[in-house]
Amino acid sequence: MRQNRQGSLVSFRPDIRLVDCTMRDGGLVNNFGFTDEFVKNLYEANLAAGVDYMEFGYKASTSVFDPTKFGKWKFCKEEDIRRIVGANDTDMKIAVMADVGRTDYKNDILPAKDSVIDMIRVATYINTIPTAIAMLEDAKEKGYETTVNVMAISKVGGDELDGGLELLANSSVDVIYLVDSFGSFYPEQIERLMDKYLNIAAKYNKKIGVHAHNNQQLAFANTIEALSLGASYLDATVCGMGRGAGNCFMELLLSFLRNPKYDKVPLMNFIQQNMLKMKEEAVWGYDIPYMLTGIMNAHPSSAIQFVKEGRTDYTTFYHQLMEEGF
Amino acid sequence: MRQNRQGSLVSFRPDIRLVDCTMRDGGLVNNFGFTDEFVKNLYEANLAAGVDYMEFGYKASTSVFDPTKFGKWKFCKEEDIRRIVGANDTDMKIAVMADVGRTDYKNDILPAKDSVIDMIRVATYINTIPTAIAMLEDAKEKGYETTVNVMAISKVGGDELDGGLELLANSSVDVIYLVDSFGSFYPEQIERLMDKYLNIAAKYNKKIGVHAHNNQQLAFANTIEALSLGASYLDATVCGMGRGAGNCFMELLLSFLRNPKYDKVPLMNFIQQNMLKMKEEAVWGYDIPYMLTGIMNAHPSSAIQFVKEGRTDYTTFYHQLMEEGF
Repeated sequence: MRQNRQGSLVSFRPDIRLVDCTMRDGGLVNNFGFTDEFVKNLYEANLAAGVDYMEFGYKASTSVFDPTKFGKWKFCKEEDIRRIVGANDTDMKIAVMADVGRTDYKNDILPAKDSVIDMIRVATYINTIPTAIAMLEDAKEKGYETTVNVMAISKVGGDELDGGLELLANSSVDVIYLVDSFGSFYPEQIERLMDKYLNIAAKYNKKIGVHAHNNQQLAFANTIEALSLGASYLDATVCGMGRGAGNCFMELLLSFLRNPKYDKVPLMNFIQQNMLKMKEEAVWGYDIPYMLTGIMNAHPSSAIQFVKEGRTDYTTFYHQLMEEGF
Repeated sequence: MRQNRQGSLVSFRPDIRLVDCTMRDGGLVNNFGFTDEFVKNLYEANLAAGVDYMEFGYKASTSVFDPTKFGKWKFCKEEDIRRIVGANDTDMKIAVMADVGRTDYKNDILPAKDSVIDMIRVATYINTIPTAIAMLEDAKEKGYETTVNVMAISKVGGDELDGGLELLANSSVDVIYLVDSFGSFYPEQIERLMDKYLNIAAKYNKKIGVHAHNNQQLAFANTIEALSLGASYLDATVCGMGRGAGNCFMELLLSFLRNPKYDKVPLMNFIQQNMLKMKEEAVWGYDIPYMLTGIMNAHPSSAIQFVKEGRTDYTTFYHQLMEEGF
């Protein structure tokens, strides 16, 4: 039996923070076209459910992306968030994601004292970590909480990952995320990676987060595996809404956690009143093509295209992936 | 890190046996109304995929169940199986399930030499284990391989379970299954239970199997957890077809296993050609009501009814379950 679990199934860990990514990862499904009514209802549901952070979308640069081609939550302008949350005089914090190379962070991210946003989440690949650090330091100087997602680590060698994590750990970042971008990891691999991330966290006094994808129906399992080993920031989305196979289901996570401040009932009501309709309009969730990109450790884009075209020739698709290599 | 894992992610364990339960657990979804064409195609697909056992259904007593009210795979008559498989001159073995109290095993189970069936799987609750043992000994004397599923153990105290397992371990049964009837277990609980089951197995030279349900999207995760700790008989169904939230997906399991004899391609072709249509006709798989019975450790029957009625008032349903107690 394992001796390295944190907490138990009947108590709770006060260090746990729930991050709702429905609008950010889910925005990749519907081009960030959420109505204000949907967003307002989600905000209210998250508040009532005890969610700790709500991520509103990306802080993308309008010089990189044409604002007429995306919904407004790709850009998360201050006034758009404030129209939903006012001054957000609540215990729930507001987060946005900033991609390396796709964010005009120097201009678009205001000083924290002038913004309703509380946390900047920087997403980087292994080869852009120095730029990510520049963004993280900028955000920290402006007064924000910060997290960093190192994406696509399933394609990165161990030594390179160690070096990248060491660099990040030497920055001012608060939380380093273990991210399973392609839904390719098994819990056993999450355990090994968590060992690495937790060692860094202990050495540099950082927190660890986890962000999982559901290509192999393991998003929830991998999230609670990381959690039970010591991750404290947990990403999830309502009904698992997210690109391709989607994410860890918030309602499963709320059911698992024992902190009395969490309550799944407001989320279930939100699902009944808002998400069932959304599920008729947008397509996400486990399906064979996403399983295949997951097991092949590939980006889901080709699977998303396959599903969009209504194709079901799974074997042809599998052999195409095989040709592209593992 | 855990030291108690069997095997690795790049090699394979020759003791692993895959059991396809699509017709048995899936039969609970469509009242065992599979067409012969579907069954024949599934048989061929399983053969090509390297599946080790195919479970055809239940060996139910026609004096307990009216044969005009169920499809034929609830009864698995010898001639019905033979019409599909002939003499089954293949490496894949044929299994059927026999429920305690609902099987006329003395008359309906032929001597193995006269039957195309290779394995009898007895399903019992904790309070009918002596009868289960009588059935298991009858089957063993007739020449069959045998397995036993102790159902609903999430409602059984530890001491009682220990006693039941000890009784079974003293029988001639070949394989004892760890069964998550209500989809209520987390991988951490599977780990603890596996410790118990593996100790019994080591002491009495038995094999351990695992049968999971997907109420919390953990069927695959729990199956590979049990597998990695030493379970060797793995139950799964195509597309997870099974009562309520369904089962561990065979295609996920085939993708996970590294034995060159396993091949997911025939299964993917079967899904394309047979299961997509089935999914339009029958309803199963993860949904909020099944999550709720899972976390409440309750039989899925009320959730199945809720879904059948097209209801979406999840909170009302949750409070009903709360009144029935954990």
